[in-house]
This record gives sequence, structure tokens and C-alpha cells, in this order.
Amino acid sequence: MAKLVVIRHGQSEANRDNVFTGWSDVPLTDLGYNQAHEAGAKISKLHIPFADVHTSYLKRAIITANIIMDEVGQNYVPIHKTWRLNERHYGALRGRNKAEVEKKVGSQQLKIWRRSYSVVPPMLAKADVERRYQRIGVKIPRAESLEMTWQRMLPYWIDQIAPALLAGKNQLVVAHGSTLRALIKYLDNISDENITEVEVPNGKPIVYEFDGKLNILNKKTIG
Amino acid sequence: MAKLVVIRHGQSEANRDNVFTGWSDVPLTDLGYNQAHEAGAKISKLHIPFADVHTSYLKRAIITANIIMDEVGQNYVPIHKTWRLNERHYGALRGRNKAEVEKKVGSQQLKIWRRSYSVVPPMLAKADVERRYQRIGVKIPRAESLEMTWQRMLPYWIDQIAPALLAGKNQLVVAHGSTLRALIKYLDNISDENITEVEVPNGKPIVYEFDGKLNILNKKTIG
Repeated sequence: MAKLVVIRHGQSEANRDNVFTGWSDVPLTDLGYNQAHEAGAKISKLHIPFADVHTSYLKRAIITANIIMDEVGQNYVPIHKTWRLNERHYGALRGRNKAEVEKKVGSQQLKIWRRSYSVVPPMLAKADVERRYQRIGVKIPRAESLEMTWQRMLPYWIDQIAPALLAGKNQLVVAHGSTLRALIKYLDNISDENITEVEVPNGKPIVYEFDGKLNILNKKTIG
Repeated sequence: MAKLVVIRHGQSEANRDNVFTGWSDVPLTDLGYNQAHEAGAKISKLHIPFADVHTSYLKRAIITANIIMDEVGQNYVPIHKTWRLNERHYGALRGRNKAEVEKKVGSQQLKIWRRSYSVVPPMLAKADVERRYQRIGVKIPRAESLEMTWQRMLPYWIDQIAPALLAGKNQLVVAHGSTLRALIKYLDNISDENITEVEVPNGKPIVYEFDGKLNILNKKTIG
């Protein structure tokens, strides 16, 4: 039996400004820092000895993870960073205000780009090149659907997180709206249609409890 | 050719209060946080793309490392935490004020306990037991000389840091007064006698530049 806590990073400047982000490395707002501290205090009350923390290559998630582990008093636990937990790449929507996009394309199209499973947003003409991905041989996508996000997230779950839970080791995942929607879709077995309605708010811990075969015994969102 | 930056954590509450600490997990002071930010800003100006960061199991070093990597804009670089970079274990001196110990035993004995290479401070009657070490099968020592610290630090240098430098990967080490004295003794080939005079201040980056055979080409302390 082991516990998995998953949580989305605190509010970022892009969240505050209602802007599409994806793989851009935007900072947390003051509210985002506070949300991280509050989430840490809540998780601390669960008295879970964590074996590992998993987060993305993006600082809004990394800093949230650092703050949580400090609040929990377990700074010494390894924090593994992986591009596989990065936010979905929003392609050419990146940096654009969601309300302005809505005005231009309508609320139906906006919802499809934001929430559908398989639709890929407009692609960048050319993929970015960044040292952090280059050094590990990963090409930055030009855009991703939620399905593409699911496909590149899942190997990390299967290879790194699931084996640790099966070995009885409690795990914390600090990630992003879309990577957590993809993970929850997989864990809760949600259909391609129904995932459209799932949102993951900033800074609210979700606690899964698994049996020794990785069946979910219990799931709850904390405060 | 690769660069190694080594730095002692920012001021801790024990540093401020002039108290022996060792493996106790004391927090940074406000000055300590500021020193970490300033050190990060200085290291940032060196424009070193780091491949790895190494730190201890103690939060004064871990938090300093997190802050530095945020200032440097390289949050995504892996931060490896190891007990082998922990501060020297000060045994029964832990928690005692240095000035009071000096009054009791004299300045000569105090200096021997603080700075000598081979003298072991008074041992604890019984070693502590803490989850963070238990989970990885490491027994906490009852006290350590600098020599004992050197002996348990060196395998980490040989197995983890040196191979990375030999492969041309820049490394950052955020550690403690005694582990850095031990490392500097090894790198600079300082005698058991002369190491008595070496101190490492909080938050001052030391930059080593190595050739492809790990000979030191250059060494300088930044600001």
C-alpha cells in the first residue's frame, strides 16, 4: 500500500494574465508562492514519508515542489525533474491571451483547443531550441494535443512512478494542468469525451491511495 | 576542460548563534537567504551552463542550492542530495555555544576540536536514528574528525563529481564548512597541518577550472 499525492503548481504569471503558456518558463506570482506554501502545510498534516518527488523542467513546478518539501520538512527527499511532466505544448497559441483568442475564434473553438483530447492546436512554424532539452537529446514539439501529452507522460509513470508505488514508496508529483489531466485520465480511466470536463486547479493536493496491485483504494482532494 | 563551483551554504541559525551543529538540520537566517541570492547572482554572471548540482541532506545547503539555481536560471538542472556531503558530525559538541566551550576548555582545545585534521570531538553516547538516513541504510556517526569527514566525502567526489568533470560537464557543489575544507584539502593537496588554517566563509563561490586530466588550471574566489 502506498500513497500518491499529485498537485498542480501555484499560480504563474501566465495563469494570472490568462495567457497560453506550455513550455515557456514563466515565474510564479506572489499568490502562486503562497499557494505552494499553503499546499505544503496541508500535505504536511497528512504525515506521509515521501520516497520521491517528480516534477517537470519548468520552474513554476520545480519551485512549487521545493517549497512543498520544505513545508513538509523533507527537503532531503530526491526531486526528479523530467520534460515528460512538462505542460502541454500550446504551439502557436503560446503567449496569446485566452479571451482575445476567444473573441477571434469563438468559445467553441477555444474550448476544443483547451480541453479536447485529440485536437492539436495551431503549430509553430519552427520548433524552439533550448539548452535544457538539447543537452538530453529531446526535441521541443511544435504543438501538442492532450493525447500527445498523455503519450509522452505515460512512459515516465510506467517506468519511474508506478514501480516505486508498487514497492510501497509514497510519491509526490508536482506538475501542470494538462499533464495532470493526462495522468488522472489514465488512473481514473476517464473517456476521451469526459476528460473535456476535467480541470485541475492550482495548488490543491489530490491524494490517491493504492493497494499492492496499484488498484485505487481511495482518492480525495485536500481543501 | 570543465568548471567546478564550490560554495558553503548561507548563514544558518547556528552560525548566527555561534553554536556547533553538524548533522542537525538547522534553518537559514534571513541573512543566509540573502547570501544565497547574492551568491546566485554572482555565479549567474559567470555564464556557466551546469550539468549537475551536488548538495547534502541538510536543508541549509539544499535551500541555498535551490536559490542559487533559480538565480542562475537553471532550475531544471538535477540537484543530487547525498549524506556524503553533510557537515562534519560534531558529536557531543552539537548544540553547544562555541564561546562557552572555549571558556570551559580553553582556546587551544577549542581550536583543535574545530580545525585539526585527525582529532575526533567528544562522542555522543548513542548515535541518533533518523528516517532520512535509515531509509538508505546509513548509520549516523557519534562524532567525526575532519579526517573521517574526508574519508566519507571522497568516494562521492571520485564516483560522481570527478567523472562528470572529466566528461567536460560543469558541476556545482553546495555544502558545508568541513566538507568543503576536506574537498579543498584533497584538490589543493594541503597538508594535515596546514588545513588547520583554512576556513570557508558562508556564501562565497570558489571557482576551479580543470583541464581534461583534472589538473587545476585556475582557482579563484568570487567577491
